[in-house]
Amino acid sequence: MNDHPTPLVPVLAVVGIGLIGGSFAAALRRVGQVGRVLGVGRRPASLQRARDLGLIDEIADFYQAAEQADLILLATPVGAMPAALQALAPLLRPQTLITDAGSTKSDVARMARDLLGDQCSQFIPGHPIAGSEMTGPEAADPMLYHGRKVVLTPFEETPGTALHRLIRIWEACGGRVQIMDPAAHDRALASVSHVPHFLAAAYMAQVVQAADADVRLSLAGTGFRDFTRIAAGSAEVWRDIFLSNREAVLRELDDFDRVLQTLRATLEADTDPAGLEALLEQAALARRFWGGRDTMS
Amino acid sequence: MNDHPTPLVPVLAVVGIGLIGGSFAAALRRVGQVGRVLGVGRRPASLQRARDLGLIDEIADFYQAAEQADLILLATPVGAMPAALQALAPLLRPQTLITDAGSTKSDVARMARDLLGDQCSQFIPGHPIAGSEMTGPEAADPMLYHGRKVVLTPFEETPGTALHRLIRIWEACGGRVQIMDPAAHDRALASVSHVPHFLAAAYMAQVVQAADADVRLSLAGTGFRDFTRIAAGSAEVWRDIFLSNREAVLRELDDFDRVLQTLRATLEADTDPAGLEALLEQAALARRFWGGRDTMS
Repeated sequence: MNDHPTPLVPVLAVVGIGLIGGSFAAALRRVGQVGRVLGVGRRPASLQRARDLGLIDEIADFYQAAEQADLILLATPVGAMPAALQALAPLLRPQTLITDAGSTKSDVARMARDLLGDQCSQFIPGHPIAGSEMTGPEAADPMLYHGRKVVLTPFEETPGTALHRLIRIWEACGGRVQIMDPAAHDRALASVSHVPHFLAAAYMAQVVQAADADVRLSLAGTGFRDFTRIAAGSAEVWRDIFLSNREAVLRELDDFDRVLQTLRATLEADTDPAGLEALLEQAALARRFWGGRDTMS
Repeated sequence: MNDHPTPLVPVLAVVGIGLIGGSFAAALRRVGQVGRVLGVGRRPASLQRARDLGLIDEIADFYQAAEQADLILLATPVGAMPAALQALAPLLRPQTLITDAGSTKSDVARMARDLLGDQCSQFIPGHPIAGSEMTGPEAADPMLYHGRKVVLTPFEETPGTALHRLIRIWEACGGRVQIMDPAAHDRALASVSHVPHFLAAAYMAQVVQAADADVRLSLAGTGFRDFTRIAAGSAEVWRDIFLSNREAVLRELDDFDRVLQTLRATLEADTDPAGLEALLEQAALARRFWGGRDTMS
């Protein structure tokens, strides 16, 4: 098919073909911007399913990925990245670009600098802000990134051409790219993703530890359902996220605690209903404003 | 149409024709268990819309409601109930049953005892655990109570026949009735409804007070969306709920704080990833178990 233009990614290698990696491959395939997809992973059954589902063309190892791929996406948990980077470092060709999809970025950047050395100019840490309660290659969805923010945190030495290339690739998947400093990313995500999960988990644990937990849960409604939904996520995944973004999460928890104690004091004093209402109104307006923006996107 | 059996409620009066009151009338109408519906309220425009929508047959005052109704539902905010009870007390016929739909029950029970005296045997406090972000008669939905828990907190002197009648009426609306003590109801609701709202509001206020609130909110995803949804609710309504269930809410907040500080200490110590994961797993399993039960109902 020589009359077809060259796709943005002639050969893609995805390390970890689950929801995130599988959706990335499917999104590029959908818009005709990938030639061949290699799947690398630890679980043969999972790779086999990814091939049966048409997400990848071939099952490969790190050697084949480094030798053939134009772009390598690390879509493993952050904890599995050092092993992948160590395996890839000695094999990497200069024209190959690597990125990842981990939900924390300071630690990934540190890891890449330590393990890739000068080659870290070929690595652009990334974080597509998209997900689902589902996991595994079966959950892959070519539209997962459509309209979603994708944060990239390039190194100072990242060439502009490489960054531009990766931006175009994510935009082809429907993503809206935002360039950030890794620390700013981690602070923002601690606030709007990690702390909500932490609070929902603490809350859920408190409810279930109560002597009358059954009665409580039998009266829980839709507010409870939505507020606690994220607490059902994988304990292992979230343990890693909290530990890898520990300092930012602790700082945000302290800030949250200050506001909570203020609100609690207003309720306890019972002398300032207008003050209580004003704080609730600030929260309600902020949420409605965000909701309005959300539905526009 | 003399061949029709007598409906469960020949004449219903609803005080406050919004989402809750309107849905109750619509639900009974749907199953043919109400004859005529009188609407009582402070806002003529709202009553007019309720009549145009077919939710009520006539606009009435307290005098007409007390004179004609077999069942009076108080579907106003808890703060407006004393005025309604004071107006009804001198007019009430012995066969009339009153109930309410307020989200706290100890204060309503106290109010009914104070203002109705011996007549409080005719009042059965209630709380249908159902709602929506929408308000007003336009939001009324005959299926709102379908499959939902409805808590009733009868007085000791409530006749069994009256309680049985109200149970049948709620069941006709699709509700699943649970009889509880008012204090137990308020404790459980503090836990599964009021505290989540309190936490979501404090959290939302903290995020929006941050210097980089815009960056944070631009990166917020679906987890944030669900976790904070309830914070958008009416500040006035929630101020009243918190104040009317103040002691139970404060007690639950203290319990929550203990669990949160334990979880936080495990993260801060950074020496016990297994302990952190175990707490997260307890929360995740509890949520998944509840979710499983929820989808069955």
